[in-house]
Amino acid sequence: VQGLSLDLKPKLSTRRREKRAMKRTGLGERDIIRRLTERFAKSGTKLPLGFEDDVAAYPMTRKRFLVLKTDTLFGSTDIPPGMSLQEASRKAVVATVSDFAAKGVQPVGLLISLALPAPVSQETVNELASGIQSACNEYHCRVIGGDTGESTDLVIDCIGFGFAEASRIMRRDGAKPGDVIAVTRTFGRTSAGLKILLSREKAMMQKFPGLVRSVTHPRARLNAGLRLANSEMVNSSIDSSDGLAWSLHEIARVSKVRMLLDRVPVAPEVRTFADQQGLNPQRLALYGGEEYELIVTIPE
Amino acid sequence: VQGLSLDLKPKLSTRRREKRAMKRTGLGERDIIRRLTERFAKSGTKLPLGFEDDVAAYPMTRKRFLVLKTDTLFGSTDIPPGMSLQEASRKAVVATVSDFAAKGVQPVGLLISLALPAPVSQETVNELASGIQSACNEYHCRVIGGDTGESTDLVIDCIGFGFAEASRIMRRDGAKPGDVIAVTRTFGRTSAGLKILLSREKAMMQKFPGLVRSVTHPRARLNAGLRLANSEMVNSSIDSSDGLAWSLHEIARVSKVRMLLDRVPVAPEVRTFADQQGLNPQRLALYGGEEYELIVTIPE
Repeated sequence: VQGLSLDLKPKLSTRRREKRAMKRTGLGERDIIRRLTERFAKSGTKLPLGFEDDVAAYPMTRKRFLVLKTDTLFGSTDIPPGMSLQEASRKAVVATVSDFAAKGVQPVGLLISLALPAPVSQETVNELASGIQSACNEYHCRVIGGDTGESTDLVIDCIGFGFAEASRIMRRDGAKPGDVIAVTRTFGRTSAGLKILLSREKAMMQKFPGLVRSVTHPRARLNAGLRLANSEMVNSSIDSSDGLAWSLHEIARVSKVRMLLDRVPVAPEVRTFADQQGLNPQRLALYGGEEYELIVTIPE
Repeated sequence: VQGLSLDLKPKLSTRRREKRAMKRTGLGERDIIRRLTERFAKSGTKLPLGFEDDVAAYPMTRKRFLVLKTDTLFGSTDIPPGMSLQEASRKAVVATVSDFAAKGVQPVGLLISLALPAPVSQETVNELASGIQSACNEYHCRVIGGDTGESTDLVIDCIGFGFAEASRIMRRDGAKPGDVIAVTRTFGRTSAGLKILLSREKAMMQKFPGLVRSVTHPRARLNAGLRLANSEMVNSSIDSSDGLAWSLHEIARVSKVRMLLDRVPVAPEVRTFADQQGLNPQRLALYGGEEYELIVTIPE
């Protein structure tokens, strides 16, 4: 640690904090997951990947795993102003693909479970389908089934599956003392971009199109993840969809190591934005979310 | 056809009709599915099972398929008065297992994607987990992963997977001229039971506990489905979760055959209930829903 004192305990991202502020007391998302997984983990032999990893894995043979992931986008909390339905449905797929990227596994197929508030227009269905298809084309996977229903909230559940050699999957819990931490890109764009979208200020949007686009048109680092897995050099890997700080903390926690940061990788345009807004650029980079980069640790 | 003239075109089940009545104009669920599947079906080689079958299938090899299903329960529309959260989460699993039953495939694992309206109490989480675990014990499968999030509506998405020899899967589209139609049990319990629950009349609930229980504690016919698949006698199979009439019509449509009914299999207690309420027992049996029996056609 060189001159920096960082609190890497999980903090809520900007958005989560806002959502939380609207709640009365109740269990947080992590508590809910912990309680559920405690219940379900009891009911069988140990799974190849813990409940807390980016994806679930089922051993088809000792060496070959079926890899599965479900990730759900909710209209009421996950679609900021200025984001189209097409962008939202594309992002639902990107979020799932990103978890496969972090494990170095190609998702081959998707199930899409859609809930739509009535009345449903043809245009809505077309927009949703276009966004999903667009992401499928980008990441070389396809929709093979799904479900639709009616709800009071728009819900897009994107379920991905793929196959992987057991030894090739990059885990969360493999970080070793002496590893260096590497990331696929600088951070902070999505926290800054979300602030801009929530401000609804057109001038800001035009000034920082890259920050806005990081929220409305994110990319999953699938190619990077596949190459990293093939390199067989990676000891641990996670996607940063819950924020840089939380993801680092999670690797440290499940790998039972400590992490020392001598630099926070802040995106240049985030520094500019933070300077103009009087914000702390490191906080934007550390406590964001839905920023689909990969964080890996590798031997020095 | 012996003295009966039945309209087997898809009708909305009692509940769906009620939901529909609350809507303004918009696309129905079937229109939405058709539009989506037209879009996604274009994007690749033909899938082993059509988008319209009970489950999705992905060919791992030419002979062995990965079988997947997602089925979602929504608090706002799928939990009638008098049904507990534990019963609801159990039913979410039963609905998914039922689709596997109809194909004769053992579901080996589940992902559960939960969305909960804030604030979330410990009791809520415990109830939901208990219902899910209870169904897992009944059907010999286990939860291997999932996701949780926050929504304005309770959403329980149950994703099941299993493996099957391609030749053993019972399809919707295999009905042949001359086949007889067989069902795993008589029908009408859930439409009657739902009416009773919606009436909130305690006396009625006590008088017809089996009808109420068919809604709150349904069973999937997994053993029957597995045995039917092993018999290798079944030409087509579907589960009746969308109602007897609709399911028969669907087999006829995708198999390109006509169906003749000489008898509607009405449950005895449904006849009693219908007599007392001045309702048509055959309508209750034909146009119900969430009645998780199997409907198969086999050579005479």
